[in-house]
Amino acid sequence: MNLKEAKIITLLSDFGVRDPYVAEMKAVILGGCPGAQIVDVSHNVAKFDIRMGAYMLASCAPYFPKGTIHVAVVDPGVGTKRRPIVAKCKASYFVGPDNGLLMLAALRQGFQHVHVIENPHCIAPNLSRTFHGRDIFAKAAVQLTKGWAISEIGREIDDYTVLAFSKPKSRGGSVMGEILHIDDFGNIVTNISQEVLRKVAFHDSKVVEIKLGRHKQALKLCSAYGEVSKGSALAIVGSHGFLEVSVNQGNAAERFQVRSGNSISIIDPKLTTPRFT
Amino acid sequence: MNLKEAKIITLLSDFGVRDPYVAEMKAVILGGCPGAQIVDVSHNVAKFDIRMGAYMLASCAPYFPKGTIHVAVVDPGVGTKRRPIVAKCKASYFVGPDNGLLMLAALRQGFQHVHVIENPHCIAPNLSRTFHGRDIFAKAAVQLTKGWAISEIGREIDDYTVLAFSKPKSRGGSVMGEILHIDDFGNIVTNISQEVLRKVAFHDSKVVEIKLGRHKQALKLCSAYGEVSKGSALAIVGSHGFLEVSVNQGNAAERFQVRSGNSISIIDPKLTTPRFT
Amino acid sequence: MNLKEAKIITLLSDFGVRDPYVAEMKAVILGGCPGAQIVDVSHNVAKFDIRMGAYMLASCAPYFPKGTIHVAVVDPGVGTKRRPIVAKCKASYFVGPDNGLLMLAALRQGFQHVHVIENPHCIAPNLSRTFHGRDIFAKAAVQLTKGWAISEIGREIDDYTVLAFSKPKSRGGSVMGEILHIDDFGNIVTNISQEVLRKVAFHDSKVVEIKLGRHKQALKLCSAYGEVSKGSALAIVGSHGFLEVSVNQGNAAERFQVRSGNSISIIDPKLTTPRFT
Repeated sequence: MNLKEAKIITLLSDFGVRDPYVAEMKAVILGGCPGAQIVDVSHNVAKFDIRMGAYMLASCAPYFPKGTIHVAVVDPGVGTKRRPIVAKCKASYFVGPDNGLLMLAALRQGFQHVHVIENPHCIAPNLSRTFHGRDIFAKAAVQLTKGWAISEIGREIDDYTVLAFSKPKSRGGSVMGEILHIDDFGNIVTNISQEVLRKVAFHDSKVVEIKLGRHKQALKLCSAYGEVSKGSALAIVGSHGFLEVSVNQGNAAERFQVRSGNSISIIDPKLTTPRFT
Repeated sequence: MNLKEAKIITLLSDFGVRDPYVAEMKAVILGGCPGAQIVDVSHNVAKFDIRMGAYMLASCAPYFPKGTIHVAVVDPGVGTKRRPIVAKCKASYFVGPDNGLLMLAALRQGFQHVHVIENPHCIAPNLSRTFHGRDIFAKAAVQLTKGWAISEIGREIDDYTVLAFSKPKSRGGSVMGEILHIDDFGNIVTNISQEVLRKVAFHDSKVVEIKLGRHKQALKLCSAYGEVSKGSALAIVGSHGFLEVSVNQGNAAERFQVRSGNSISIIDPKLTTPRFT
Repeated sequence: MNLKEAKIITLLSDFGVRDPYVAEMKAVILGGCPGAQIVDVSHNVAKFDIRMGAYMLASCAPYFPKGTIHVAVVDPGVGTKRRPIVAKCKASYFVGPDNGLLMLAALRQGFQHVHVIENPHCIAPNLSRTFHGRDIFAKAAVQLTKGWAISEIGREIDDYTVLAFSKPKSRGGSVMGEILHIDDFGNIVTNISQEVLRKVAFHDSKVVEIKLGRHKQALKLCSAYGEVSKGSALAIVGSHGFLEVSVNQGNAAERFQVRSGNSISIIDPKLTTPRFT
């Protein structure tokens, strides 16, 4: 990777889109790297929700070109002893707080090592106590675009924070998983991958029995939302390769009254009296 | 139009601004066209509301420079037999689903022809079932920036979908029209153009009698919101050349309790006992 | 400043992010200045709230590089006699309506002079009555990127509008200030600067007694949100150098039921019976 050509910088935060905070980060970036292509991943991560931010960053990072620098700031510990870090991967960088936000993505992207941001050139002289996104992370990203070696950023560490994301458990034709994310459409994104789904027992070739909260429901596994009538629920492998529960032109999370972190199971029809509620 | 210089790509969708979906489309675009100028038109089209998306796209497209590529994704039929298309116009392209979203804009922009997106270079190898914005439309846009002839995208079709938008009906000094859009200020945008408005009967040189839902109201036709007192309703020709009903520093749609698709009439004062409610 | 290199254009408005209005401004800018780096400061200024827009613009402008052109549109008087202006500063420009929106920022940024936008090249031939952001301000910004002298824009004026922002009053160890802004986290941003705060009387080295609405509360003056337990209130100097009241991982404005414009006092503990509510 030629670092000097690394000009795409993504931003993810829980800042919302009302205040000028994101613009201040962009001002610092453009001041140091006038030709940067800045892409907003999201600034509507739920406030202080590091897991949600980690999920989003890991979801989109694989689609970016080689050399992309991802700056992420969901940072309730700003100003405390939590360290500012850069995670270097084979073809990308992740810049942000050492609270687990970065590592789900970094570990899936050819992870190499983590360095603490210590070089004074990466830290604003009048460093604020509350906004390291602007005063440290944006500045570190600029230095990376200039071709700095990662070792110039600061010393390497190996005790960085990694968040635990639960993996689905299979038994026979059943799988117990978890809801990773509810998207803006109300699609229920699970941690049950396409590979795991292949081992599941079906009622027939296309119907799985799913338990979501208190609901048990037989859902057709579809290749398109439009395979069921408008307003009907369905199961589908979503655009990141995981099982999702959706409602055709409707909101599945509202229908089933579930949220991130809730459990979702696929039940082997041989183990239960199928109930179609 | 020199296609190689066509580097502005606009994006419109109903994805919202919380999820990383829009960023994934931008990642694909920047991967294929590093210098692209990407402009977000809106990602807050009401979910699945193809008409609202079509209206927005047609509103803003005329302001973009020659060569702009507009990618639009309000796509409840994703994964079904609805076709992915490119509409070629004299000086611009529209890329998206064949559900009517594109054609209101395209037909007003020097429309030439529509081609189905079939070329494998426009389709991600691991095509998802739910996200053709990323896996087809963004990729097709990239190929267009490379100077592809439209015929390389796929075969031409002529049975593309066109949505019917109703036109106002005039009789004498009266006009019956429709609300096209409620904007974020609550301005009520109608389908009654400046030209049609010229044929309308006025109470006097500047007052029209408007029927909006159950309300009949004589409104001053103003050249600026500030011509009436704060909180008062007015009629005005909006920035796209259509009659709008507004409240000075207020929200007209809330005041009159109306929404898109509702009828709006201008009534010839000779035909009615004017009631000023 | 070499105007030809001035390619960063920021946009601030109360347009919201649903309608295509912001995109139309960007279309005009990119049509005239294809390489422009356009940065959205915010489009979620409260509708018609010129003070909020002025505050936001002044907050972020100092972080932008030399030559940046700031276009701001919170413009309830559009189409009336309020003038369209450019404020020239030592190293930046502010373009927008003459209603006070620009001048808080301009006066802090090496302000030089204000000119009315009069040159026909800065005004769309089919000027709308309601959208000078697109039809005047964006076009004027384009001309500035081309290296126009400010005098080419129009005649200089000195009766431009300046909004009054109240300054804190100190008496002994007490200070009476005002809430400038509630940010999206619910942080309560005051007009009490770090310098003023230094003159305040403390209960001990780190505790100030604050009166916010009806609440009196002794708050720890922290260097990081995380210095108090989750859900506890604190005082902190925010990222723009002003006293803020926050709740660690919570929403201070909701907790204290306050909003912009409300008063906030720091009370000398010798003058009162400290009450820790």
